[in-house]
Amino acid sequence: MDRAIEQYVDRHLERTVADLKRLAAQPSISAQRVGVKECGAVVADQLRQAGFKAELLSSGDPDYPVVVGEAEGESDYTLLFYNHYDVQPPDPLDEWETPPFEPTERNGHIYGRGISDDKGPIIARLAAVKALREAGGGLPVNIKWVIEGCEEIGSPGFHDFVHRHRTRLRADACIWEGGGVNWDGRPLITLGVKGLLYVELECDAASTDSHSSYAPVVPNPAWRLVWALNTLKDANERIQLRGFYDRIRPALEEELEAIRALPDTASQFLSNLGVEMAVGEATGFEFRRRLIMDPTCNIAGFGSGYTGKGAKTILPATAKAKLDFRLVPNQDPEEILASLRAHLDERGFSDIKISVFTSERAARTKVTDPFVKVVAESARSVYGNEPYIQPSMTGTGPQYPVQEILNVPVASCGVDYPGNRIHAPNENIRRDYFRLGLLHTVELLRHLGAAARRT
Amino acid sequence: MDRAIEQYVDRHLERTVADLKRLAAQPSISAQRVGVKECGAVVADQLRQAGFKAELLSSGDPDYPVVVGEAEGESDYTLLFYNHYDVQPPDPLDEWETPPFEPTERNGHIYGRGISDDKGPIIARLAAVKALREAGGGLPVNIKWVIEGCEEIGSPGFHDFVHRHRTRLRADACIWEGGGVNWDGRPLITLGVKGLLYVELECDAASTDSHSSYAPVVPNPAWRLVWALNTLKDANERIQLRGFYDRIRPALEEELEAIRALPDTASQFLSNLGVEMAVGEATGFEFRRRLIMDPTCNIAGFGSGYTGKGAKTILPATAKAKLDFRLVPNQDPEEILASLRAHLDERGFSDIKISVFTSERAARTKVTDPFVKVVAESARSVYGNEPYIQPSMTGTGPQYPVQEILNVPVASCGVDYPGNRIHAPNENIRRDYFRLGLLHTVELLRHLGAAARRT
Repeated sequence: MDRAIEQYVDRHLERTVADLKRLAAQPSISAQRVGVKECGAVVADQLRQAGFKAELLSSGDPDYPVVVGEAEGESDYTLLFYNHYDVQPPDPLDEWETPPFEPTERNGHIYGRGISDDKGPIIARLAAVKALREAGGGLPVNIKWVIEGCEEIGSPGFHDFVHRHRTRLRADACIWEGGGVNWDGRPLITLGVKGLLYVELECDAASTDSHSSYAPVVPNPAWRLVWALNTLKDANERIQLRGFYDRIRPALEEELEAIRALPDTASQFLSNLGVEMAVGEATGFEFRRRLIMDPTCNIAGFGSGYTGKGAKTILPATAKAKLDFRLVPNQDPEEILASLRAHLDERGFSDIKISVFTSERAARTKVTDPFVKVVAESARSVYGNEPYIQPSMTGTGPQYPVQEILNVPVASCGVDYPGNRIHAPNENIRRDYFRLGLLHTVELLRHLGAAARRT
Repeated sequence: MDRAIEQYVDRHLERTVADLKRLAAQPSISAQRVGVKECGAVVADQLRQAGFKAELLSSGDPDYPVVVGEAEGESDYTLLFYNHYDVQPPDPLDEWETPPFEPTERNGHIYGRGISDDKGPIIARLAAVKALREAGGGLPVNIKWVIEGCEEIGSPGFHDFVHRHRTRLRADACIWEGGGVNWDGRPLITLGVKGLLYVELECDAASTDSHSSYAPVVPNPAWRLVWALNTLKDANERIQLRGFYDRIRPALEEELEAIRALPDTASQFLSNLGVEMAVGEATGFEFRRRLIMDPTCNIAGFGSGYTGKGAKTILPATAKAKLDFRLVPNQDPEEILASLRAHLDERGFSDIKISVFTSERAARTKVTDPFVKVVAESARSVYGNEPYIQPSMTGTGPQYPVQEILNVPVASCGVDYPGNRIHAPNENIRRDYFRLGLLHTVELLRHLGAAARRT
C-alpha cells in the first residue's frame, strides 16, 4: 500500500463520509418512485466533481435514469464499475433507531437506508479515484461506470440498456456491487449472482367472499392453491417442475474448493435468524454449498381470506401466492416459466393465473480467471490476510447482460460486512471496513494499471 | 288468522318498526366490545315495556350480559325464545348505502346492521306478544326468553349459562333465531345447526423474516403449512383426519325427503357469488344435501410473508392458517381437535401450533317432532302456502346446549328472506316479510295454546 495515498485517504475521510451522508440523505425508493430521479442527478454531480464525464441516460422509464460516467487513465486497460443508486423501501419505520434518510454515525457505524446497499460503495469508489489522482500520480486505468436507478425492483430495462450501449460500455473487466469482509474480518470476493424468476400465482373462485357455511358447495381458492403448491415442491425440498434441474451446469472442482475454504459460519447465520436447524440439517461445507450453489423455489407470500386477529368464518373469493425461484447458471427463467405453466395445466390447475415480476438469468465468473487473481492479490495487500473467494452471491443482480453482452469477468469487492442489515431497518456500514474497502479499490486500480503496463 | 289481531298488528306496525330502528341504532359489536352492554339494557327495557319480567344476567364476561325475560300465559305450556342482541362488525363501511347504525327504510326494505341478525326477530316477537295481550285476549302460553350478547363471537359462556340456569329456562319447546321465507316467498322452517371447530394453525420457523436468497438453508413456514394442509383434505374434498366421518349420524329418510322438497335454487345461489360450478359439480338435490348435511374443512384465511403489490423477495418467519370445520350431529369437536393434533404429529408437523377459537357441537330436531308440526301448521295459515322444512341451517349457533340440557325440540321461524345480506354491508329485511313473520309468531303462540288446552 502506498503511504502517501493512504495518508491522503485518511486526511479526507471526514469529507468522504460527509459525501456519503449527503447522498444517503436523498431518498431514492424505486419501488415507490420516490426521489429516484433527484438522486440520479446528485450522483451525476458527485461524479462530475470527481472529474468524471457523467451523463443521465434513459433506462426506458423516465423515473429511473442510468448514470454513466467515464474517466481516462494512464493505460489502455478499462475497468467497469457497476452500482445502483436506488434503495429498498425503509419500512418498518418504527424499527429504525434513527430516521432512515438522516444518516447518523454511532460507535463506528454509519446508519441509513442505502448506506451499504449501494451508496457506500459508490462514494468509496469515487474517493479512491480522487485519492489516486491527487496523491497517487494519476488514475492508472480508464474507468467506466454504470449506476442504475431501479436495481431494487429487478432492473427492468437494464439488459436492453447494456445491449444499446455495448460499445460505450466496452471494458476489460467489471467490479460489481457487494463484497467486503466476512464475519472474521477477512476480505470476501464474490464472483457471480443467482438468477431469479419471481411470479405470483392467483386463483379466483368467486366474485365475492362468502359465508364459510357455503363450503360444501362453493369452491375454495385457498385450498386449490395449497393443492397446486404442494405439487411444486415436496417436503424433501425437491422441486417437481419438469426439467428444472436438467440444464444446471455442475459445480466445478475449483468452485467447491473455494466453498470449502470459506469459514463455517452456519451456526451464527442461523442463530441470527432464530432458526434451530438448517433445511436438510445441512452443516459445514454442505450448508455453504447449498446456500451458494443451489436453486430454490421459495414462497415469499401467501394471502387469502381473513388473516386478522380472532375468528371470521369466511370462504375467500381469491388466493394468491408469490413464488421466487433463485436460479443457477444455465437455467433459463423463460423455460422454467413455461414448465410451471405446463405443470399446473397437467394437474388440473389451468385456472391458476401466473404473473411474472422478474425474470433474470444467473451469471458466474470463473474462480480461475486472471482478473480474480488481481482482485485477490490487491485485497491481500490491503487487508493483510487471505481473501475468501465465493463463487456466487446467494442473491440476484443484473450481472448476466454484463457478462454475456460485454463478455467480461465480474467480481465483487467493497465495503460490506455481514452485519450490514441491507433491506432491513438500521442498515449500516462500519467506518473501518468502509476505509479498507476504499483502500482496496485504490490498490486494485494500481495493480490493474501495473499489469497493463507490463503487457 | 284472527282478524282483530291482524288489524291491531297493522295499526301498530309503524310503531313496531320505530322500536326496531331504535334498537338497531344502538351499536352492539361483540367482536369489538362496542356498545354491547348498553344494547343489553335497551333490550331489557323493551321487554319490560311489553310486560315481561326482564333481568340482565352474567354470561361470565361483564361486557356481554344475557337478557332473560319471562311472561306468564294462559296455559301450562312454556315456549322458550332464543335470540341475540349483538351484531357483526359493520366493515367495510364504504359499501353501505346508508350508515349501518342509522336504520333507514327504502322501497319496502329496512337497512341497518343487525336489522335481520338478530334485532328484527326480537322486535317481531315482542310485537306479537303485545298484539296477543292487547287484541287477542291474552298470551296463550308462558314465554321465556334468553337473549345473549356474544353470539357473533361464538357464544362463549353460553353452554355454562344454560346449565347454570337450567331450572329457570325449563320449557316445552324453543323457537330459535333465523327462519322466514325462501326465494319464492314460501315459509322456511329450519330445525338445527351445524357445529363448528374453528382453529388457527401457526408455523414459526424463525424469529425474523429474512432475504429469500437464504431459502436453500432456512426453513420456510409457508411451505410447511402448505404441506401440512395438503394432508388434511384431498382434491376430492375428502377430509383425511382419522375418525372424522366415523360418528356421523346417517341422514334420516325424512330429512332427505324434506331436502328433496326444497326448491332448486342452486344456480341462483352460485351466480350470486360469481361461481360457475359447485364443488363436485353438485346440482339439484345433491347440491342441497351437501350444503345442509355435509361437514366441512374450510380454509378461512392463510397469511404468510409479503402479500402486497409487486415483488418482495423475502423468506417469511411465520405462516398462519385459519380453518373452520362445520360439524354435523354426533361429531365431537374435542375429538376432532385431538385427531387434528395427532394427524399433524404423525406426519412430522408437531411444530405447527393449534389455537382453538370456537368449539361447538351440531344439533338437530327431528322433522317428525310434534312441535315442528305445530310450527308448520301455523305458518301455513299465515302465509297461505306450504312451508319448507330444512333439517338444519348451514351455519352454526349454540343450539346444542338448549337441546341437550333443556331437552326440548328447537325450530327456527322468523322474518328473514334470502336477500337479507347478514354479516355484509346493507343488511336488511323486507317490511312485508317482517309483518308476516310477526303474524306467524302470533299464530304459533295461539296454536300452541290451543294444543295445550286440548291436552
